[in-house]
Amino acid sequence: MENCPFCSIIAKKNDSHIIYEDEKTLVILDKAKDVDYHMLAIPKKHVKNILDCDDETLTNLLFTVKKISTHCVDSLGFDGINMLSAANKAAGQSVSHFHIHIIPRKNKDGLDAWPSFPGSKIDLLEAFEFLKQTKRP
Amino acid sequence: MENCPFCSIIAKKNDSHIIYEDEKTLVILDKAKDVDYHMLAIPKKHVKNILDCDDETLTNLLFTVKKISTHCVDSLGFDGINMLSAANKAAGQSVSHFHIHIIPRKNKDGLDAWPSFPGSKIDLLEAFEFLKQTKRP
Repeated sequence: MENCPFCSIIAKKNDSHIIYEDEKTLVILDKAKDVDYHMLAIPKKHVKNILDCDDETLTNLLFTVKKISTHCVDSLGFDGINMLSAANKAAGQSVSHFHIHIIPRKNKDGLDAWPSFPGSKIDLLEAFEFLKQTKRP
Repeated sequence: MENCPFCSIIAKKNDSHIIYEDEKTLVILDKAKDVDYHMLAIPKKHVKNILDCDDETLTNLLFTVKKISTHCVDSLGFDGINMLSAANKAAGQSVSHFHIHIIPRKNKDGLDAWPSFPGSKIDLLEAFEFLKQTKRP
């Protein structure tokens, strides 16, 4: 897709640090410099996020996330993995091309990969009843 | 698996708020009360996380995450979704049964679902060269 930075990386029009590539997916190093070894797994097909992603593209992407995660733990000495993804701007998605963040972790690395949430405002039963609806009233 | 709280929920030995269930997966409301509508998608088969998860279980779980995410946005009035998962204690995994956190979001809900990371300590080229290794030296 035109003007998509990830499509430009996939087409090799933009530079990036490519960690892994196969026919359907790519794993690159994130340039944000917010945390060491921060990677992004992206499908080569332009889809926005999990909400519009076809089953085959989703499956291929997750198999790649699993492959890279396993490589980090089994071969590179990491002890764990965080996986994060945002769908739509409301959730903080900054680039409109599906990407899953992969953050390899070490024991006692001092990171906290759980977001700082403010606590729930509604009770569990109310949340449950809302989510169980088939359609919003 | 014995002494696994999610296996007990799957076997209906422990109470929970079940949002969705099919033959292979379950979506329950998280009881942490850290953020509204916080759900967990879990496979019925006991696997620890993405690192030991077979392809079929991973696929089924992600299809369920997609189904619930789409339901939240298309039918319940949410504007986006965050998806998070931790593999192993080093990454903050608290229950040793694979689970993907699903957090439905609304525009301007005031949440920040990105963790507070301290900045990278090594440069991108060093990280790139480390991750590109096939085996740790």
